[in-house]
Amino acid sequence: MDGREQDVHVGASKYQERQGIGTAAQSEDKDYIEPPPGPLFEPSELRSWSFYRAGIAEFIATFLFLYITILTVMGMNRSPTKCAAVGIQGIAWAFGGMIFALVYCTAGISGGHINPAVTFGLLLARKLSLTRALFYIVMQCLGAICGAGVVKGFEKRQYERMGGGANVVAHGYTKGDGLGAEIVGTFILVYTVFSATDAKRNARDSHVPILAPLPIGFAVFLVHLATIPITGTGINPARSLGAAIIYNKDHAWKDHWIFWVGPFVGAALAALYHQVVIRAIPFKSK
Amino acid sequence: MDGREQDVHVGASKYQERQGIGTAAQSEDKDYIEPPPGPLFEPSELRSWSFYRAGIAEFIATFLFLYITILTVMGMNRSPTKCAAVGIQGIAWAFGGMIFALVYCTAGISGGHINPAVTFGLLLARKLSLTRALFYIVMQCLGAICGAGVVKGFEKRQYERMGGGANVVAHGYTKGDGLGAEIVGTFILVYTVFSATDAKRNARDSHVPILAPLPIGFAVFLVHLATIPITGTGINPARSLGAAIIYNKDHAWKDHWIFWVGPFVGAALAALYHQVVIRAIPFKSK
Amino acid sequence: MDGREQDVHVGASKYQERQGIGTAAQSEDKDYIEPPPGPLFEPSELRSWSFYRAGIAEFIATFLFLYITILTVMGMNRSPTKCAAVGIQGIAWAFGGMIFALVYCTAGISGGHINPAVTFGLLLARKLSLTRALFYIVMQCLGAICGAGVVKGFEKRQYERMGGGANVVAHGYTKGDGLGAEIVGTFILVYTVFSATDAKRNARDSHVPILAPLPIGFAVFLVHLATIPITGTGINPARSLGAAIIYNKDHAWKDHWIFWVGPFVGAALAALYHQVVIRAIPFKSK
Amino acid sequence: MDGREQDVHVGASKYQERQGIGTAAQSEDKDYIEPPPGPLFEPSELRSWSFYRAGIAEFIATFLFLYITILTVMGMNRSPTKCAAVGIQGIAWAFGGMIFALVYCTAGISGGHINPAVTFGLLLARKLSLTRALFYIVMQCLGAICGAGVVKGFEKRQYERMGGGANVVAHGYTKGDGLGAEIVGTFILVYTVFSATDAKRNARDSHVPILAPLPIGFAVFLVHLATIPITGTGINPARSLGAAIIYNKDHAWKDHWIFWVGPFVGAALAALYHQVVIRAIPFKSK
Repeated sequence: MDGREQDVHVGASKYQERQGIGTAAQSEDKDYIEPPPGPLFEPSELRSWSFYRAGIAEFIATFLFLYITILTVMGMNRSPTKCAAVGIQGIAWAFGGMIFALVYCTAGISGGHINPAVTFGLLLARKLSLTRALFYIVMQCLGAICGAGVVKGFEKRQYERMGGGANVVAHGYTKGDGLGAEIVGTFILVYTVFSATDAKRNARDSHVPILAPLPIGFAVFLVHLATIPITGTGINPARSLGAAIIYNKDHAWKDHWIFWVGPFVGAALAALYHQVVIRAIPFKSK
Repeated sequence: MDGREQDVHVGASKYQERQGIGTAAQSEDKDYIEPPPGPLFEPSELRSWSFYRAGIAEFIATFLFLYITILTVMGMNRSPTKCAAVGIQGIAWAFGGMIFALVYCTAGISGGHINPAVTFGLLLARKLSLTRALFYIVMQCLGAICGAGVVKGFEKRQYERMGGGANVVAHGYTKGDGLGAEIVGTFILVYTVFSATDAKRNARDSHVPILAPLPIGFAVFLVHLATIPITGTGINPARSLGAAIIYNKDHAWKDHWIFWVGPFVGAALAALYHQVVIRAIPFKSK
Repeated sequence: MDGREQDVHVGASKYQERQGIGTAAQSEDKDYIEPPPGPLFEPSELRSWSFYRAGIAEFIATFLFLYITILTVMGMNRSPTKCAAVGIQGIAWAFGGMIFALVYCTAGISGGHINPAVTFGLLLARKLSLTRALFYIVMQCLGAICGAGVVKGFEKRQYERMGGGANVVAHGYTKGDGLGAEIVGTFILVYTVFSATDAKRNARDSHVPILAPLPIGFAVFLVHLATIPITGTGINPARSLGAAIIYNKDHAWKDHWIFWVGPFVGAALAALYHQVVIRAIPFKSK
Repeated sequence: MDGREQDVHVGASKYQERQGIGTAAQSEDKDYIEPPPGPLFEPSELRSWSFYRAGIAEFIATFLFLYITILTVMGMNRSPTKCAAVGIQGIAWAFGGMIFALVYCTAGISGGHINPAVTFGLLLARKLSLTRALFYIVMQCLGAICGAGVVKGFEKRQYERMGGGANVVAHGYTKGDGLGAEIVGTFILVYTVFSATDAKRNARDSHVPILAPLPIGFAVFLVHLATIPITGTGINPARSLGAAIIYNKDHAWKDHWIFWVGPFVGAALAALYHQVVIRAIPFKSK
């Protein structure tokens, strides 16, 4: 068992390993080349249209993400009775569903991050250059600000009353609770992204990328189901920043650092978990 | 970086580009031929059974779409307590879920438009002839009228009380808000359709078409979650027309233009975004 | 345009046709052989284990279907407040979700009918023998009776109070409304089944069967969203029979014929639509 | 019909059989080799990194599963009105959705069990060794305890008031009802897992594994919809144990045996059904 990694399938965790040393594993290996870590700076990409196109796609996607989700939050108080409103479950569907649809649409253009924490996690794993990561994060934040701004333009009074969809730690929770919720929540999202984009798994199990946007969207949906009562759920610094800037009240800014530190720590832990445990670096380095 | 387009995958946005000039990209290119823009008029298709079959399929699909969705809206007031009713979230599922199922069923027959705005967007991108587009739009509108009519036949009194599922700008919003909501909402839908049907992406990422009906259905679901409180959500002129004709009250007709202008503008913007930014015409024309 | 059928893809409805006469269409044809209509009686299948296994699988699947769905209906009145209950939307998910999971599980064993109306529709299209169809329908009905019986065993009093999940035409609707709702609802389901299992489409678009159980499950979900307020939604005679026999009150039996006639008429119309319009028999017979 | 098994597709249950004896079936057989039953003890796997990695992945997955689901249960009482809370349906989505996302993420690492009952069922079918099964179950229980513990750390008072998400038989049901609900519920889950991972079906229908995590997640969602009012739904002894240990009140321990005996009996029945009926051992042994 010399550091060679074995892959196993749903429910069955044994057979690859027993037949592993022989032909099957080797023919699998032929298909798969671990991509080398990307360089931190790559000047050539600044001259390619696809680099700028990817940035525009991230801007539009984050714009649409904030537009739909904040508008759904606003709708909560308008319906004749509370029971007809979409409720927390509907809001969670708006966030998760948009990530599903937007990852599907932009995966082939920009990688479908739509979230600075995802970009940060993939940067740590050296899947994109630092230049590209910074460009994406700036475009995501601009998109989020514009998206929240359009919602405020639609319904200014309602917007103020509902807190603008800004993330704050709810009454009854400590800042530590909020930070913890953001860390674990982002861990779930970024871990799902890593699982869905693992080049090695993709090469072996050709069906992994087909569903990919769906579990990523579900991860966002589920974290919202669980943590909307705690922080309103950030796990996406661009979303938190956009809502905070457009709402722009003191109490939205007071906790704002949590929605950058939490997601970035969660993304770093997910990158660490994936690289150290799942990709099994300790044994490979032998 | 001479205008050659690069495609990237979920989460990874870098490697195609670095290996791009070489063999991998070229072998990919072999699989892919950009279809030439379709002619505006093609007399031969008027003599093919598949042309009329596609029109019938659009009629039946739009009929079933209105039937299920308007009936779901009607159900809101019948349940013993409001809490047992399906609520706005249930209505949004009815619209989005029907689009998912119907696109799945009719994609192979008519392209699965079920919506004049989608037909218009694809016409602008020259994916179908003007003759076919007009034929589809007429069939969609007829199907929608019949679907809403059957619902009224079931429950006339209830139908009047619930406003017949007709789209109007809700109290508290300006006509401009309603128009904006329709434009952005239709942009999301048609952008998803373009992403799902991009011939180039399909050739490279063989998994893109597999999920296709699901993100399209989700796009419809999400726009409904967000904008039912504003306009009842049109983003489909056939749906708005069918409900308005069967309901046929002044206040449903007063705002009716919004549900044609908005979706068509949104579809045009999505076609523009896809052709100019995503398909990168500026660089290709060099 | 001599009766040759053209297939088109999501959103694009034109190109197959223009390139159709040439190589592409012909190479597609090689993959595809229209299966001949099945014989009505085939004695040999009565000696095969797979025939009986399929019947057992239909029994177990229909048993589990009634068990989960009727139990979900029963749960409506137990939760502390109505708002915590799953509501009509939750009930609709139970029906549609079970069909999704069970079609996925049994498609490879029995074809995954779980519904006499589906079996009847496929019999009309000569996709299975009369012997097999009758055997399936008997097993489905037995499974449904057992499933509803187990639920009654769990909570007899609650079961009586909730009407045992039996289908009746709701107060305020005529029998004609109920019959119409059952016809159109079953049409949607069986049309989706035909679209998902079309041998010709499967041969061309290799991705059609992958999603198949999902739109079928969604069709059931959507019909329930729309017609639970009218009839409780049958569209499955085995489900209606099982609930009626276990509940066994006069008012459940009074309307019972609707839940056999409606689904069978709807399934026949879907089979007709698929064979005459979609499969284009008129032109092929030339 | 000599014991050879036939597979059939959605809706069509006939043609494989008629063409079966000839070439088609034989060419199919070439693709497929039934894996031999795994040994109960395999010392070599204790020396492989993938064995320990799989255990860690099960620990992390079960930790995240309990964290999200118990936190969602806690959220029920915090929202301003009951109607805004996620309700039983939202809780069911949390359980089912997490299983979908986690099975997707860990299927390639550990087989994606996340549940001692699933591990037990697959052990009975000899799909993994006894050593591995015991290791998984220990890691799952530890993960569950940690996940529930973190939730209690967030909101101690709320946690006590909501019963800590622990499984108990609800007032008005007998212990026998609870046991029956756990048995049938786990049967549904483990039967879906067997259907999704059937090596024979995977070899023939290459699309079976693509969707696999989705019906497995839906099975969990549906069982929760139906049986939350009865037992809170266990069908996963690790989940029940983790919640019971962290909550640690007498009444949670009183019924605890039900949530081990029920799931293990249900899993055993599913394994029996799959091996004896679906995999058709009686005929193969001829």
